[in-house]
Amino acid sequence: MNLLEKLDAAAALRKAQLPEGLGAFGIPIEETLSATEARIGGRTVLMLGTNNYLGLSFADECRQAAHLAIDQEGTGTTGSRMANGNYLGHRALESEFAAFYNCRSCIVFTTGFQANLGTISGLVGQGDVVLIDGDAHASIYDGCVLSGADIIRFRHNDAADLEKRLRRLGGRCQNTLIIVEGIYSMLGDQAPLADIVQLKNTYGATLLIDEAHSLGVLGETGQGLVEMTGLLKEVDFITGTFSKSLCGIGGYCVSNHAQLEQLRYVSHSYIFTASPSPATIASTRAALNLLKNGCFLRERLWKNAHRLYSSLGKSGYKLGPQPGPIVAVILNSPQQALMLWNALMEQGIYVNLVLPPAAPAGSSLIRCSISAAHTPEQIDRVCSVFADLYPLTLQ
Amino acid sequence: MNLLEKLDAAAALRKAQLPEGLGAFGIPIEETLSATEARIGGRTVLMLGTNNYLGLSFADECRQAAHLAIDQEGTGTTGSRMANGNYLGHRALESEFAAFYNCRSCIVFTTGFQANLGTISGLVGQGDVVLIDGDAHASIYDGCVLSGADIIRFRHNDAADLEKRLRRLGGRCQNTLIIVEGIYSMLGDQAPLADIVQLKNTYGATLLIDEAHSLGVLGETGQGLVEMTGLLKEVDFITGTFSKSLCGIGGYCVSNHAQLEQLRYVSHSYIFTASPSPATIASTRAALNLLKNGCFLRERLWKNAHRLYSSLGKSGYKLGPQPGPIVAVILNSPQQALMLWNALMEQGIYVNLVLPPAAPAGSSLIRCSISAAHTPEQIDRVCSVFADLYPLTLQ
Repeated sequence: MNLLEKLDAAAALRKAQLPEGLGAFGIPIEETLSATEARIGGRTVLMLGTNNYLGLSFADECRQAAHLAIDQEGTGTTGSRMANGNYLGHRALESEFAAFYNCRSCIVFTTGFQANLGTISGLVGQGDVVLIDGDAHASIYDGCVLSGADIIRFRHNDAADLEKRLRRLGGRCQNTLIIVEGIYSMLGDQAPLADIVQLKNTYGATLLIDEAHSLGVLGETGQGLVEMTGLLKEVDFITGTFSKSLCGIGGYCVSNHAQLEQLRYVSHSYIFTASPSPATIASTRAALNLLKNGCFLRERLWKNAHRLYSSLGKSGYKLGPQPGPIVAVILNSPQQALMLWNALMEQGIYVNLVLPPAAPAGSSLIRCSISAAHTPEQIDRVCSVFADLYPLTLQ
Repeated sequence: MNLLEKLDAAAALRKAQLPEGLGAFGIPIEETLSATEARIGGRTVLMLGTNNYLGLSFADECRQAAHLAIDQEGTGTTGSRMANGNYLGHRALESEFAAFYNCRSCIVFTTGFQANLGTISGLVGQGDVVLIDGDAHASIYDGCVLSGADIIRFRHNDAADLEKRLRRLGGRCQNTLIIVEGIYSMLGDQAPLADIVQLKNTYGATLLIDEAHSLGVLGETGQGLVEMTGLLKEVDFITGTFSKSLCGIGGYCVSNHAQLEQLRYVSHSYIFTASPSPATIASTRAALNLLKNGCFLRERLWKNAHRLYSSLGKSGYKLGPQPGPIVAVILNSPQQALMLWNALMEQGIYVNLVLPPAAPAGSSLIRCSISAAHTPEQIDRVCSVFADLYPLTLQ
């Protein structure tokens, strides 16, 4: 088989596994009506499958900042941060992120995906080890592959399994980077950070946490799991993204280690890519300001999350291990998940369909994500529709 | 040495090799005054080191489109194209790129870097072969590493060397992806596409060309090297970026092969990343329209390019092999390149300093890039300053 025939074969396999299922992926959004509603298939649909956790996508402050940046600095920088793309705003956003985490240093990347690629491949290399969670995000995995380090997976959120692997590594632990996530993107559960920090200290490894889904969501000021657990100072590197609670596009790494700055000279995904657009930087700066002062947004988000999680549980659904802005409904098969997805869409509710291999451990999920912008009435409607549809999952 | 000590050691080595040289990288841009001027160190500086080839960064049509998108669709999509981030604009831009190349299909990625990662790692895998040019861009190289395919480099722009390697591959050629670039980012020279197409056909391999630096620059309508050589139909996949001639951020892959669409289901850098912001999509659509109708811009760009290339040559500088929007001055050592870079900055001219390993074959470069927005007077001033500084390179 040549290269194109292989793609044909993979496509045929995909179609055979789930006929009619592919329409759930990349469904065309015809119009964005608000932070929680869109027009899909000519109808107004409630969006319960975005990562717009704080509901800031239309925030006036962010939009105004973006408008100003476009007029003052143009639509793009046309260059890398290492060349002509290092504008005042890029440096200011780095300072503001460093100050937000009370950390020495911050590097801003063009996407969150590239933040993980560049940070991981800059920190470790051939002969080093990365110890990653079994449910690690694809950008973490790809960063590990690019680094050339030995990749070892430990069982999802299982500190005992992590310890077993650290013990085996012996003297190599000092060249080992452990990587966990504040909130896991699919099941919505949090890393057991206290246990992991203890292991990192015992074995002398280095620890990176990706707060992509927990930034703005966990902790008094929204720093993420590091703040909620009071363990900020115990973590070596924190990465995250602008494209979820901050409603921009881009990513960051913050650290108290002065060595972070050295990544600017080695990370391909930092050096060989154009810097974020002025509009994105400006809106992200405004959003970060709203985020850190956004206790009331976090309160609303968590009220919505608890309401949905407890209601779906009462309706009988099997859910991810803990409530949060991501509520994962675990189904028995891809077919069942697709059936539920279709039924929800018919009722005007958009959620994410997640099938293997994107879903963890061969499961099939309906992934709901919640926003501070959802009204209690919207959440109630969702709960009621889910309750009515529960019999579908018994087939 | 633990992970942090290794970074310290690398930093010390870098400092020892070129003391005082690091200030040339990521120089702070204090204000962007126009497509060709910025404030750096409190002074107005002529920008001869951007990738703003058509000078569209402040184009009214692009800025207006971006403004409208921000108000109608918000600052970000907060989701992947495969989830909730597949807006009307994203699909329209794909259709417009496909139509521009008269190709069947197009996929838009969030960065040009991610376009190469996703396309290459989607097309080839373990057991396949990638044959890449010795001067291949870092994003191409990283895409090859992620794919797991066997990576073989051929000598830069050397069709005979490519043929030797194809011959050795024998039956594996049908599983081989050859990757070249329309214009190489450092030396500014073009791939010998006619020779490469002939080899690809003779040996039954697949061919991808990255038109990142040639989009908008080469060919009647700006398609790139594929148009200038009349070989569009002979190339299997074309990638490119929005962050140079289009003054946005993002990337694309177009192809006549229906199989391109399958990459949406396998490419990590497409699936596991947020889609481009509405503002970026809108400004890029407007810029693509200006680009394809921008013969007069290409004329001005090439007039400037020929003027600079011939003048620097007459002054005695060793240059890259052919004139174009990138004019590379080849110096004898990193120290000499840094000295020239500093002297140019003193005269208010910003260019890119490129040192090993970023520069090809151990060379050190002053990389000038030219814009249609440069006036003949600006180019003349640059030529005159370079002529005055030539004695520096004789030391």
